Amino acid sequence: MSASSHLASDEKVLIVMVGLPARGKSYISQKVARYLRWRGISAEVFNAGKLRRETPGVPHRSDFFNPDNEEAKKRREGFALEALNQSLFFLENEGNVAFLDATNTTVERRALVTKRAQSRIEDIQIVFLESICSNEEFILRNIKDLKICSGDYENMTEEEAVSDFQRRMKHYNTVYEPVSDDENVPYIKIYDVGKEFKIQKVQGFILSRIVYFIMNIHTMKRNIYLSRHGESQFNMAGKIGGDSYLSHNGRKYANCLADFVEQIPEKNLKLWTSTLVRTRETAEPMSRRLNLQGHQWKALEEINAGTCDGMTYEEIKTELPHVHAARKADKYNYRYERGESYADLVERLEPMLLELERHKEPIFIIGHQAILRVIIAYFMGQDVQEIPYIKMPLHTVIKVQPKDYTFTETRYPLNVPSTGSGSSSGDPEPKEADTSPLIFSSSL
Amino acid sequence: MSASSHLASDEKVLIVMVGLPARGKSYISQKVARYLRWRGISAEVFNAGKLRRETPGVPHRSDFFNPDNEEAKKRREGFALEALNQSLFFLENEGNVAFLDATNTTVERRALVTKRAQSRIEDIQIVFLESICSNEEFILRNIKDLKICSGDYENMTEEEAVSDFQRRMKHYNTVYEPVSDDENVPYIKIYDVGKEFKIQKVQGFILSRIVYFIMNIHTMKRNIYLSRHGESQFNMAGKIGGDSYLSHNGRKYANCLADFVEQIPEKNLKLWTSTLVRTRETAEPMSRRLNLQGHQWKALEEINAGTCDGMTYEEIKTELPHVHAARKADKYNYRYERGESYADLVERLEPMLLELERHKEPIFIIGHQAILRVIIAYFMGQDVQEIPYIKMPLHTVIKVQPKDYTFTETRYPLNVPSTGSGSSSGDPEPKEADTSPLIFSSSL
Ligand SMILES: Nc1ncnc2c1ncn2[C@@H]1O[C@H](COP(=O)(O)OP(=O)(O)OP(=O)(O)O)[C@@H](O)[C@H]1O
Ligand SMILES: Nc1ncnc2c1ncn2[C@@H]1O[C@H](COP(=O)(O)OP(=O)(O)OP(=O)(O)O)[C@@H](O)[C@H]1O
Ligand SMILES: [Mg+2]
Ligand SMILES: [Mg+2]
Repeated sequence: MSASSHLASDEKVLIVMVGLPARGKSYISQKVARYLRWRGISAEVFNAGKLRRETPGVPHRSDFFNPDNEEAKKRREGFALEALNQSLFFLENEGNVAFLDATNTTVERRALVTKRAQSRIEDIQIVFLESICSNEEFILRNIKDLKICSGDYENMTEEEAVSDFQRRMKHYNTVYEPVSDDENVPYIKIYDVGKEFKIQKVQGFILSRIVYFIMNIHTMKRNIYLSRHGESQFNMAGKIGGDSYLSHNGRKYANCLADFVEQIPEKNLKLWTSTLVRTRETAEPMSRRLNLQGHQWKALEEINAGTCDGMTYEEIKTELPHVHAARKADKYNYRYERGESYADLVERLEPMLLELERHKEPIFIIGHQAILRVIIAYFMGQDVQEIPYIKMPLHTVIKVQPKDYTFTETRYPLNVPSTGSGSSSGDPEPKEADTSPLIFSSSL
Repeated sequence: MSASSHLASDEKVLIVMVGLPARGKSYISQKVARYLRWRGISAEVFNAGKLRRETPGVPHRSDFFNPDNEEAKKRREGFALEALNQSLFFLENEGNVAFLDATNTTVERRALVTKRAQSRIEDIQIVFLESICSNEEFILRNIKDLKICSGDYENMTEEEAVSDFQRRMKHYNTVYEPVSDDENVPYIKIYDVGKEFKIQKVQGFILSRIVYFIMNIHTMKRNIYLSRHGESQFNMAGKIGGDSYLSHNGRKYANCLADFVEQIPEKNLKLWTSTLVRTRETAEPMSRRLNLQGHQWKALEEINAGTCDGMTYEEIKTELPHVHAARKADKYNYRYERGESYADLVERLEPMLLELERHKEPIFIIGHQAILRVIIAYFMGQDVQEIPYIKMPLHTVIKVQPKDYTFTETRYPLNVPSTGSGSSSGDPEPKEADTSPLIFSSSL
């Protein structure tokens, strides 16, 4: 009998992005792929532009995008087809969902993609995901924000770059054919950054999930803050689980946290905690002093250690060596007897994370070690197998900031001592020496 | 600080059904409304035809639906507008989602509905949910299955009834205008019973949830079987929770269950259990003898009684009278310390239930008392407050069968004795005398 928290899917899905430059094709495909991977679905983005930029000696000024420039057209086609090849190769092997991240702006191109994909993979589901945006101002902002730092425009002034990019867009515009009902293909169209949707012929588990996800995300930039509760009685004793009160240092941290929040320039900050005493106690000074609206989530409770709840890691090692060994062998999938695994936490946290995505306000989450590892992995895109080893010290705030297609994290150790660490680690089970730099950036 | 497992929604949504007769308007709206209510969202269906049928002296033969019959047209309009009034009244008060279940087949009618709704409720979200079905055979089957027993056709032969109903459809057909993009309104179109979807301008939490749900349901009729595990050591001791083995009688039940399953005519039966020992042990003989494909769900584990795990109800009553009292006061929302409430179970079971909806095969679920109460309430539509009191005796199989818009349940006590009951109840905490009839039917 198979045992997992959800049924595995053997779907093979090719998502073909469609749209003019700076319409969020890369942004959306990266974001959805990251979400799917976090959920344990094998998903990758294949980007034609990236291949082009990574190939030495390919010009990238706007005349390369002029449809009358025959040679350039062939070479661009070459990169797009190579990205398609890579997508299909991925789906033929371990992949479930491949995103073909190119403009695909003509009927002819889309027909070609469909034909090749169907000839190579039986039962492949092909869906066109088109972003249409008529808001000029928004597009200009996209260009300035993102395109100009993309590597195509080194050694150019912003003005030159913008106008080059606009010329490139004009070239595309002359040939752009939005996906039409006559093509008789499944599609998802996103208008004006999610103000409207048009979805046709889309079916199946993964795709209905993707539709749900896309309908709930936005591009508003706001920060997310994460912190573990302050040091608890159980932390001091080195015990896992429980529902203990804060220690003296823990209460000190709660006050420092309130100072910290008073100093950050966030409007409409929302405060989320778990239902456990130690997170609520930690939230109390900040909630009171800043009059923050709070919400307690059962889903934010610490991983359930089942029959090991209340033990120390030392005790587990000596009294339950099989538990220690099994956890060491596969910490992500190991499920505590009558408790949970990290994989279970992904399932448990998913509705909360979608709620987080829907909200436009900045949010401060006071949680627990394992839970916050799973949450930060969602943003930073770590491989799920690495989740149990992400550093998550006590008495440290992590700020997660949207940046381009991804997020950066900044860590603020608040300098309140806690058990088990001069370096405020507090993790009774460190994997390696704790030498955390203060700023990380998630990789694409 | 508010504490719940999901954030409350204050959306006000009017879902206006659109479609010719026998297109599943009532079926879909009832099913979605039942799902939303189970999730704690206040949802109701308002049906014009029901109002018409409940009003004494209204003719119901096809000439009443002839668009040239002016008086009849006015009266039909009266019923439709009354259903709209009731919908809006509901949304003005406690309602979040109202389904206006009428044909609404003309642009004019839809414009009228929109105008009235917007004039009465600011910020109302109006969405047209249209079912389009061109498969003649399917429609004929719908008519025979359902329409002819609807009360409009007493004292008629099947043949007469079908042809009367077909004439009624023709009347509608002459005026039918499918929702068009020119109307510039949000819509969800379902083609050929879910083979395709077209969704436009649909946004927001509740609606994205509804889209996700609709994309994962089907109308294939198949049965669901539910059973608690056989009597366990803990059942014998009257203890809650734990992860104990089956008792002697429990193992006997497991074998009887295999006999039972051998005698039911189900093809491709799937077997789902929880991850706990007692459900897996119960499944073992049936799985082995019928070579059934099984799946273990963490989500199917019994309600987590937290710090009360392993206690008897008597012990809780005497040692933790506050727990006993709090549970008695609000058993649905009461959350065991470090454990769960019934409301938490809804959140936990939701992904599994959607997986259940997606599957087309019959499924046998071996679960636990609280979990099965929550599952059966999903199908039978009980009010969530009643869930903790649904009878769920040991050693009894419940068969859930789709019937019209709803389900019927049939109970098969397998005559294997268990603790605490000659009547094989086994619930150590019965609310009232156990006099279960063997067949129930869910009400609309
Ligand atoms: N649905 C959307 N419509 C328009 N812009 C969006 C949308 N979603 C995200 N964006 C914004 O688009 C910007 C990113 O553009 P992105 O690089 O993804 O465009 P692109 O379509 O991949 O362009 P190119 O064809 O040049 O690769 C981001 O700043 C993001 O906020
Ligand atoms: N999307 C669908 N398209 C067509 N039929 C469907 C669909 N979904 C469910 N059905 C089937 O339609 C039948 C029920 O028809 P239902 O009574 O709901 O139609 P109706 O549109 O409400 O008709 P009426 O206008 O006469 O009230 C059920 O047997 C159900 O299986
Ligand atoms: Mg791009
Ligand atoms: Mg109906």
